[in-house]
Amino acid sequence: MGDLPKKYKAVVYDKPGEVSTKVVELDMPEPGPGEVLINLTHSGVCHSDMGVMTNRWRKLPAPTQAGQVGGHEGVGKIVKMGPGTENSPRKVGDRVGIKWIAAICGSCPACLSGHDGICFNQKISGFYTPGTFQQYVVSPADYVTPIPDSLPSDVAAPMLCAGVTVYSALRKSGAESGNTIAILGAGGGLGHLATQIASRGMGLRVIGIDAGSKKEIALECGAEIFLDHAKDKVEEEVLKATGGLGVQAAIVLTAANAAYASAIGLLKFGGTLVCVGIPEGDLVPIATADPASLIVKALTIRGVAVGDRREAIETLEFAERGLVKTHFTTEKMDKLTEVFEKMDRGELQGRVVLDLSG
Amino acid sequence: MGDLPKKYKAVVYDKPGEVSTKVVELDMPEPGPGEVLINLTHSGVCHSDMGVMTNRWRKLPAPTQAGQVGGHEGVGKIVKMGPGTENSPRKVGDRVGIKWIAAICGSCPACLSGHDGICFNQKISGFYTPGTFQQYVVSPADYVTPIPDSLPSDVAAPMLCAGVTVYSALRKSGAESGNTIAILGAGGGLGHLATQIASRGMGLRVIGIDAGSKKEIALECGAEIFLDHAKDKVEEEVLKATGGLGVQAAIVLTAANAAYASAIGLLKFGGTLVCVGIPEGDLVPIATADPASLIVKALTIRGVAVGDRREAIETLEFAERGLVKTHFTTEKMDKLTEVFEKMDRGELQGRVVLDLSG
Amino acid sequence: MGDLPKKYKAVVYDKPGEVSTKVVELDMPEPGPGEVLINLTHSGVCHSDMGVMTNRWRKLPAPTQAGQVGGHEGVGKIVKMGPGTENSPRKVGDRVGIKWIAAICGSCPACLSGHDGICFNQKISGFYTPGTFQQYVVSPADYVTPIPDSLPSDVAAPMLCAGVTVYSALRKSGAESGNTIAILGAGGGLGHLATQIASRGMGLRVIGIDAGSKKEIALECGAEIFLDHAKDKVEEEVLKATGGLGVQAAIVLTAANAAYASAIGLLKFGGTLVCVGIPEGDLVPIATADPASLIVKALTIRGVAVGDRREAIETLEFAERGLVKTHFTTEKMDKLTEVFEKMDRGELQGRVVLDLSG
Amino acid sequence: MGDLPKKYKAVVYDKPGEVSTKVVELDMPEPGPGEVLINLTHSGVCHSDMGVMTNRWRKLPAPTQAGQVGGHEGVGKIVKMGPGTENSPRKVGDRVGIKWIAAICGSCPACLSGHDGICFNQKISGFYTPGTFQQYVVSPADYVTPIPDSLPSDVAAPMLCAGVTVYSALRKSGAESGNTIAILGAGGGLGHLATQIASRGMGLRVIGIDAGSKKEIALECGAEIFLDHAKDKVEEEVLKATGGLGVQAAIVLTAANAAYASAIGLLKFGGTLVCVGIPEGDLVPIATADPASLIVKALTIRGVAVGDRREAIETLEFAERGLVKTHFTTEKMDKLTEVFEKMDRGELQGRVVLDLSG
Repeated sequence: MGDLPKKYKAVVYDKPGEVSTKVVELDMPEPGPGEVLINLTHSGVCHSDMGVMTNRWRKLPAPTQAGQVGGHEGVGKIVKMGPGTENSPRKVGDRVGIKWIAAICGSCPACLSGHDGICFNQKISGFYTPGTFQQYVVSPADYVTPIPDSLPSDVAAPMLCAGVTVYSALRKSGAESGNTIAILGAGGGLGHLATQIASRGMGLRVIGIDAGSKKEIALECGAEIFLDHAKDKVEEEVLKATGGLGVQAAIVLTAANAAYASAIGLLKFGGTLVCVGIPEGDLVPIATADPASLIVKALTIRGVAVGDRREAIETLEFAERGLVKTHFTTEKMDKLTEVFEKMDRGELQGRVVLDLSG
Repeated sequence: MGDLPKKYKAVVYDKPGEVSTKVVELDMPEPGPGEVLINLTHSGVCHSDMGVMTNRWRKLPAPTQAGQVGGHEGVGKIVKMGPGTENSPRKVGDRVGIKWIAAICGSCPACLSGHDGICFNQKISGFYTPGTFQQYVVSPADYVTPIPDSLPSDVAAPMLCAGVTVYSALRKSGAESGNTIAILGAGGGLGHLATQIASRGMGLRVIGIDAGSKKEIALECGAEIFLDHAKDKVEEEVLKATGGLGVQAAIVLTAANAAYASAIGLLKFGGTLVCVGIPEGDLVPIATADPASLIVKALTIRGVAVGDRREAIETLEFAERGLVKTHFTTEKMDKLTEVFEKMDRGELQGRVVLDLSG
Repeated sequence: MGDLPKKYKAVVYDKPGEVSTKVVELDMPEPGPGEVLINLTHSGVCHSDMGVMTNRWRKLPAPTQAGQVGGHEGVGKIVKMGPGTENSPRKVGDRVGIKWIAAICGSCPACLSGHDGICFNQKISGFYTPGTFQQYVVSPADYVTPIPDSLPSDVAAPMLCAGVTVYSALRKSGAESGNTIAILGAGGGLGHLATQIASRGMGLRVIGIDAGSKKEIALECGAEIFLDHAKDKVEEEVLKATGGLGVQAAIVLTAANAAYASAIGLLKFGGTLVCVGIPEGDLVPIATADPASLIVKALTIRGVAVGDRREAIETLEFAERGLVKTHFTTEKMDKLTEVFEKMDRGELQGRVVLDLSG
Repeated sequence: MGDLPKKYKAVVYDKPGEVSTKVVELDMPEPGPGEVLINLTHSGVCHSDMGVMTNRWRKLPAPTQAGQVGGHEGVGKIVKMGPGTENSPRKVGDRVGIKWIAAICGSCPACLSGHDGICFNQKISGFYTPGTFQQYVVSPADYVTPIPDSLPSDVAAPMLCAGVTVYSALRKSGAESGNTIAILGAGGGLGHLATQIASRGMGLRVIGIDAGSKKEIALECGAEIFLDHAKDKVEEEVLKATGGLGVQAAIVLTAANAAYASAIGLLKFGGTLVCVGIPEGDLVPIATADPASLIVKALTIRGVAVGDRREAIETLEFAERGLVKTHFTTEKMDKLTEVFEKMDRGELQGRVVLDLSG
């Protein structure tokens, strides 16, 4: 790969708590034992990055520190292998991705059960571990996600977070091909990907539920029916569309407590409510999750954390086949503050992918 | 089977709403198409019968009518086959059982999915369908439960309700042999059976949780550890006993909202809360069932209705092998009011089985 | 439904052992306990009917008798309900289907496990039980298959055998949406349905394998790749198409021992060979099914019997949505011998559906 | 841990192809990136070691080299952590085990699917990777198996190969607590462990099948019934013991082709034949594995490779609880040739564990 530069560019949160980023120069790192050094070319910008930067996200265990390199949807090429990686299928020149979970220990009880997202010793990309808003990053050789050859890097980047999360939720919903599901928040960042993967990739029939302005995108993404939660009698319409039975699964991608409360009423006997969106503020129980209601219809409620490595690979396969696409625009690194400002004002249309080339 | 009498004895609820029963004579019924006529010898007396008799149970869709023959845990011998039963494996002389669900349609969506307890056209034994507090009853040939030869009828009877319910809940908990589970209400009517089936039949390790007075029975039934929910720091003790991880499943058999609220804190990542006990009064959401808590540990909450035919058969197999036993005393039919009065005052020790012989 | 005629037309095998049928008049039957009387309008003609008529099919336990009404893919309307069907969701006027398994007992161990096709007391349509080559038939109310409103009866009929069988096999293959499978016999009667259901209904990626002449139909039905088993290096090509890994499942729909032997080599580690086609002649073990080969790649081999009621309903849902279609031509009852003669000479193109209207 | 010696003792195969070992002194290794250095105290001696030493085992891809340190059932304490292990839950002083699979890459398709035993880049302990017949060994920090505190090292060692293998096979059999299974080879090295784990740990009912001399040990280990394959009418007896149905799973632990051929006849409809034992000599198909037989009873055949890390931990939990025990004798390192000679003559009673202390 030729000689590596001594320095490279990164974007850091210079004033955590505020919407502010700064392009800096950092020293080129060395890949440690079991690690690879990756020359990143693209990174998605996700709403979670905003939560980390501004310390608004209550789930995180500690405040973000000044100088943190954010980002957790990066794609680039391996340029150097660290010691102890001889046995790895990854090689210099491979295109790979970095996602929210940057590293797992591989041997805690959660890892052994395939629960990457709950690894007791996990590292989070862009939070106390340098993220993907930079030109170079080190990462464990056995944890990076291989990118399929024909999938462009800018297209792949946003799949690594939103795409993987919803794919994992759909799998864990227990819905089988031919089943009808409801997606609450079907036109949003997560929802428009979930709708595509479900309808085009997994053979599921989708009833999309969202604000009326999202009707067009939800239908374009493959929803058979769209319901406006503000105007339509959602439960009535869902029952009508399903022969009076309800849906096999309701995937709640929004953070609204009201969405959770309404979702249980949409379910068929034996159906499953899948929790993905995390409501902000105080912890509020799902208003309709009382034992009698769950027992009478044999319902299930499942919380789903982020997807694992295998699910990341499978999500990218769907993307490679063209079954799922993200609307995104590309921006340079020095525009990142501006991007976050727009995001904060709710003005972003689709996703932004940072071009890290310089 | 010799000639059948014209009349036979039954116990009816003569004043629904009150604790009152009366022995009456009824005309011998004819088994209809697809039905068998059974000469019952024993019937368990369950707390749900009390709920039906007194109309205290809010779940039921309509008030109980005077003259209702109650009971839903009956065992006896087939004495006559109705028309259209030639293809049935059941024959005159077979010993069979009747349970809460007296009949299903077999072809609604719930039946086709194996959800007997949710059959859209189900009949409930002892509620608008004559129950098992009588010497003869008709029942669908393909829905009665065969009783294993070596299992006495009085022992089998109470298994058909409490036993089947908890067995079904344990199966649906997803816990596998070797896993540790918590049973909330481990020393009660459902709990002492669940503890035996789990520990002796299914290879599960049980932490029994209940009031202190139930310690002895819970430990006798196979619990490895007993925790008094009034005195012990339950969550702390459960974590200590499970290497800091928590239990794979928590089975809530009590009707206490507090038990539901505490159960989630006992779970291991990826664990399951199984809802069986139905709290009385208004519907109250499980206080700790908020999306964030479920997501962070990838938890599941499942409502479990009554077991199906196959689970009934499997429960009786455990009973036949002596792995699960009920403590019960036997009473004559004319003592039923007295039995219910004791039950109402909380004075019953163990289960009561009615001897229907006369 | 007006008055029913006293007599009606049926086609019987008049000389079992030979290819010969005869239109006769039969007395109108009465629906027995739990049964419905159906006025059939269409019946598919299946290769298995030929096996029954000619006694060539060694699997059957006894020779076919003269006067047998054949057929096992019938569709029509319920015109009369027998005694004891009050609790059934089926009503007069409902359009319903009859399939290979005409009736099950519902209470043998196989039935309780959801294995309809193995019911110890099953009745087979068109073999010792009058089949669907007739204008009226009686059938258990709880076992007929409801036909979706918008699905024409002639389109539905052939789905009830071939369609259900392959759908069941695909489900039991364990392959999940996004997986690649191989279908051996992809262009045949079973195969062209399997290819459509897999690719359009279940989100599976299909490599079709068959004789070269079937290439066009296999690709039309949704196969991504077609391999000619006579010319192509099948194993090499399958591995190339799957990144060197092989397919998640290989569904063998042909009756060729060679197809079974080759299928194991196509599998990915952890993959499954699904057996559907039954080779004629002596029982021959799958030549590559030796323990070492299965162990080294952790492979599974599964035999799949005919589908159950629920699978029949799900198959018809795919058909209703237009995701799976059969090529068929319609013939009158008196042409049935001619149809079988063509079938015997291998001259039939697609399926034949009998119009039973007169 | 104090200073480590410069040299330590190991036993090597000095003349591969023959039964011959030699104690040698080796230089103390350094743990590489991601590795730990373990001071082994005990190693089981397994029949597979004999196969490796003598090059008799045809499954291996290359001949064993002189100087190979054999063994794959080692237990000892971590004495040094290599670079890059800071994130590992393992620490100096932890007691850990080494098993057949010494290392996996963690990121090939097999690893991502939880198929450790098929890892495309696996290392095998005692074959081209130094094994456990030595006082010190290096191993990946995230792949060693933690040993429960109360389980003695000599007891744990033999669990790491035979115990894990049979536990994995039992899990993959699909049998559930309460089911009856047949274990073919129930009194042998694998079989006596399988019988204990199945009956005492997993709630399965075991019919043990083996040579008559193994009756006592099989019954002691928990088999409810023992059948002598040379004298008893095995199929007839199995059917009699299971109400005419057959067993849910047949686990073939012997290497006899005849055992495989007979096992299919023992299965209940929907049952599973699990292949563990690998017959020597040419590959011979399972004689009864023809498509028709598998289809008619909806049977499954599964090949099961060695267990994964999680299964190793779960096996040791059963051992810690005293539910499964191995009969073993302890020998010094310089007796290893003698041990192998006895093994070769079939004179070993139970397992041998090497005491590696000097």
